[in-house]
Amino acid sequence: MMEKIKNATLKELELIAEETRREIIDVISKNGGHLASSLGTVELTLALLKVFNPPQDKIIWDVGHQAYPYKILTDRKNDFATIRQKGGISGFPKMTESIYDSFGAGHGGTSISAALGIETALRIRKDDSKVIAIIGDGSMTSGLAFEAMNQISPDKNGFITVLNDNDMFISTSVGSLSSWFSRKLTGKRYNSIRQEIKSVIMKLPPIFRGEYILEIIRKALESSKSLMTPGILFEGLGYQYVGPIDGHNIKELEETFKDVSQTDGPVLVHIHTKKGKGYLPAEENPCDFHGVAPFKKDTGEPKAKSHPSFTGYLSNYLPSLFRRNSELIAITAAMPDGTGLKKLQEQMSARVFDVGMAEGHAVTYAAGLAAGGLKPLVCIYSTFLQRAFDNIIHDVALQNLPVIFLIDRAGVVGEDGPTHHGLFDISYMRMIPNMTVMAPRNEQEMARMIELAITMETPAAIRYPRGSGVGKRFYNRLSPVHYGEGIVLRKSESKTLIISVGNMDIQALDAASILAKEGIFVSIFDLSFIKPLPENLFSFITDNEIDKIITIEDGIKAGGAGSAILEEINERKISAEIKTIAIRDTFPGIGTQEELRHESSITSRQIVDAVRKMEK
Amino acid sequence: MMEKIKNATLKELELIAEETRREIIDVISKNGGHLASSLGTVELTLALLKVFNPPQDKIIWDVGHQAYPYKILTDRKNDFATIRQKGGISGFPKMTESIYDSFGAGHGGTSISAALGIETALRIRKDDSKVIAIIGDGSMTSGLAFEAMNQISPDKNGFITVLNDNDMFISTSVGSLSSWFSRKLTGKRYNSIRQEIKSVIMKLPPIFRGEYILEIIRKALESSKSLMTPGILFEGLGYQYVGPIDGHNIKELEETFKDVSQTDGPVLVHIHTKKGKGYLPAEENPCDFHGVAPFKKDTGEPKAKSHPSFTGYLSNYLPSLFRRNSELIAITAAMPDGTGLKKLQEQMSARVFDVGMAEGHAVTYAAGLAAGGLKPLVCIYSTFLQRAFDNIIHDVALQNLPVIFLIDRAGVVGEDGPTHHGLFDISYMRMIPNMTVMAPRNEQEMARMIELAITMETPAAIRYPRGSGVGKRFYNRLSPVHYGEGIVLRKSESKTLIISVGNMDIQALDAASILAKEGIFVSIFDLSFIKPLPENLFSFITDNEIDKIITIEDGIKAGGAGSAILEEINERKISAEIKTIAIRDTFPGIGTQEELRHESSITSRQIVDAVRKMEK
Repeated sequence: MMEKIKNATLKELELIAEETRREIIDVISKNGGHLASSLGTVELTLALLKVFNPPQDKIIWDVGHQAYPYKILTDRKNDFATIRQKGGISGFPKMTESIYDSFGAGHGGTSISAALGIETALRIRKDDSKVIAIIGDGSMTSGLAFEAMNQISPDKNGFITVLNDNDMFISTSVGSLSSWFSRKLTGKRYNSIRQEIKSVIMKLPPIFRGEYILEIIRKALESSKSLMTPGILFEGLGYQYVGPIDGHNIKELEETFKDVSQTDGPVLVHIHTKKGKGYLPAEENPCDFHGVAPFKKDTGEPKAKSHPSFTGYLSNYLPSLFRRNSELIAITAAMPDGTGLKKLQEQMSARVFDVGMAEGHAVTYAAGLAAGGLKPLVCIYSTFLQRAFDNIIHDVALQNLPVIFLIDRAGVVGEDGPTHHGLFDISYMRMIPNMTVMAPRNEQEMARMIELAITMETPAAIRYPRGSGVGKRFYNRLSPVHYGEGIVLRKSESKTLIISVGNMDIQALDAASILAKEGIFVSIFDLSFIKPLPENLFSFITDNEIDKIITIEDGIKAGGAGSAILEEINERKISAEIKTIAIRDTFPGIGTQEELRHESSITSRQIVDAVRKMEK
Repeated sequence: MMEKIKNATLKELELIAEETRREIIDVISKNGGHLASSLGTVELTLALLKVFNPPQDKIIWDVGHQAYPYKILTDRKNDFATIRQKGGISGFPKMTESIYDSFGAGHGGTSISAALGIETALRIRKDDSKVIAIIGDGSMTSGLAFEAMNQISPDKNGFITVLNDNDMFISTSVGSLSSWFSRKLTGKRYNSIRQEIKSVIMKLPPIFRGEYILEIIRKALESSKSLMTPGILFEGLGYQYVGPIDGHNIKELEETFKDVSQTDGPVLVHIHTKKGKGYLPAEENPCDFHGVAPFKKDTGEPKAKSHPSFTGYLSNYLPSLFRRNSELIAITAAMPDGTGLKKLQEQMSARVFDVGMAEGHAVTYAAGLAAGGLKPLVCIYSTFLQRAFDNIIHDVALQNLPVIFLIDRAGVVGEDGPTHHGLFDISYMRMIPNMTVMAPRNEQEMARMIELAITMETPAAIRYPRGSGVGKRFYNRLSPVHYGEGIVLRKSESKTLIISVGNMDIQALDAASILAKEGIFVSIFDLSFIKPLPENLFSFITDNEIDKIITIEDGIKAGGAGSAILEEINERKISAEIKTIAIRDTFPGIGTQEELRHESSITSRQIVDAVRKMEK
């Protein structure tokens, strides 16, 4: 395919673009995935492959959800139908998947940093291959991108950054930086002003036509031009700026890339693309087709009704909660939809802040809000909150400020795979002094935990998975959650206890049913509080002379909830045989959440096996 | 004092400035501390206190090591002599210390985020007090500051950011952003150009003096002016820019602050100050007087010879290591001195990268270097590396890239206090799949661990404390470190084993001596590897039928090394009584390292007590 692209005429490239687009729509309508972004980069990918020579030249995609065309057009055409499925290819660039993936991604804002590292390494190794980072305007709100651009220097030859500007940043009005990108002085208008001035000058008496005044006016004009384009920002950062260019015009892209590949020093090419390009439903609703579940190709409608979920419940619950509590403020980092804040934002826009792809700032900003007397809810996915680890410690916990963390997508998240799993939150939150860490079993319990957290004067975290708890199917949780108390979900006369974290109660209850059929009876305790561990857990253990304990959680084992229980049981010198079931020391791959729980050995089966072994 | 400042004449203010400076030099020459930065902010602080009204108005210092004058001049004059000492006041702003400290700090780049949060909270609460963030040019390299500035909007009335530019950023040539700050077009030159043009225009025939051409030229000139000052950057971000101003001219500062306190919308005031101002040794060597140990006031010479330390040893060791290994690259985040890279930088500048106060980028950049085939050493303090937690997970560990982390200042660091302790690294590093975590007892073992790490193809972390191990005093570690092997430091016939982490072997050996005098004999095992846990630890336990284990580490207990040992002993069903000694669930305060180890109950005494109890 690479060979074919190199030799293709413009017409042929346009045909390939069409085919690629069709294939992406075909597969993603079946598998789900990041459709809109990838439809926007088809022509860009073709032009990059026409001009540059990966894998010698290094192409680094930021976030990477826009790299589907790149996967198809480099070496994964035959595997593309398996994207985001167990055993299939990843929805993001992945170094072990292909030599064409020079650097993996999933989180935003990393590409320029990584590309600079690769560039330094190549140059030290006397390799003058090109290094190309492609970053979206959304990722530019990430401080990491700025930290990297601060390292741009004139000696970076063959270092090209493509700013793929699809106006997401602007249309969602996140941030003052976007004003840089929206500065557009068309060549036409600029030229007409220049012409006019020239004609004025030509009419001047000869004495005024001297070098001096012409030079001043020329310089002033140049300045005004830069001022009115995004160029000045990037030129100030050390880049040579080229653009903006139509990102769906293969010819223009190709010519530009040819051009800049010969330029000395670092270049930033600013292109404009359209999210969802070529698929009408996605063009019209790029947000809905950002990360999308399987849909009907002809209409764009979802194939299945979306299930109730923690996020969905939260979305309906927050507006009334906010009406009742005037001190509440919600903060999200470029994820108002994914974190369930959209509805609240529509109803109470002054109390919802989307700070862009800026998790660190989201948390420190929340610390400031709390210091100013409000109660902020920070709504960020578990995997992205890792980016604010120090802000949580240094700005929130050390000052013991009442910031509430709503950690969505905890545990294995499914098809987005290893970059997106929320494996670490239990461990990284519970080690922080002053922090309370809760895990609800279901949507209603989550609401009760939020209600508890807003009465607290110290930081609290509530973590819950993608998808749904058993929620309404099993019970309504209308009674309040009490601080530091867990719940006995099932009590038997036996001395065996299963301790479950969050919605892993489903696995515990399932295991108990299986075991009951074998005549083995167990008690089940829902932890609710990972930190502090519930005092009633230990009284239950003592009162019932529990001597066999199985813990189950959907997080990494090292330092997790099981580990917390081991620490405490050791401290209290409780004598019991303990089996901790958690995700072992590895990154789970891709697949459905259920597949990944099986792969990670955190299901009812492991509980059943453990109990059987202990009961022997 | 506040009252006195409000009513003071310029002359009186200058006297107060002199007194304040003298007091800072007096106290810091005895206590040690951040001298140079604080000498630079005396006039700034006076002008702020003259114009604004804390605690109603909120003053937020970035990093906070420049806030000594503020402490003295608000309400801590009488306590200032206790700064950085056990029971004394903190070397950083601290909300619980004073109502004048609106937000705590210690790490850089947080002030604008926090100030924005406070501003939002005040406005929602209908409070129109001013909010003033003071940030240094160095902190501006932090992506967090940019993430925050992206949230600047025109409705932020009474929101003032003071850019305290002491040229550190420029003089150390970190970063392309510094080019913005160094753009200086003096008013004089600008005015003379304007005059000249005006006179040319006035000589034009009346027809050319129309609105149109005048307007064009005026606008063009304005643009050129902005272009040539740092203003354009901040104006592009939504600020109104004022400056640059002499930061030691109280009158000019006062007038400016009065002015901008009446301005609508957010304002950035750019001031120039001199680090170490008013104390010649510090003016001449601001770096040496950044964070300084007690010194002789008349000469500026250190009072005591600095002890050998892990950092010092590293500094001497790295140049030869780098000469032997051409693939090594060192990266630091604004800390070439503190991390022991200065000498290497002087000798091999092309292989040392200081990326500014940008820990996230440092790590992702290193990941790029490793992807490009080199072996990067990331040299960052434990507390600051928290800021790159996600970069370690997402960019390094998930891709299993051979990046080596040299984590300095692990454990309690002493007088800098809670913002700077390295409490969490054991827990946050060991939970990450693919990561190896080592802790050397002494300087030479650290070198051997680095030598091992550079032979590995996977990520590795080596963590060591501020100060020194027992190093040469007790033994030379010339033999290589073997992967996943710990060391039996002392073997007795008893069934009691002390497991020590890093230089806590000192406490273990000390405890063993005390116990030996009582006729109680113990074995000691130096863990060396926190992850993976040494196999020879478990064989030692089994072979010697160990049934009493005491672990000691200088990190947080939750998820720490003791916890790792509990996890593994539980997994292996080893039956033993275990006591884990680690820092309990709290932030240790300020004091010497020794005082803090006592305060945190991680000394030989706790070991002795635990063993005595077990032996009963």
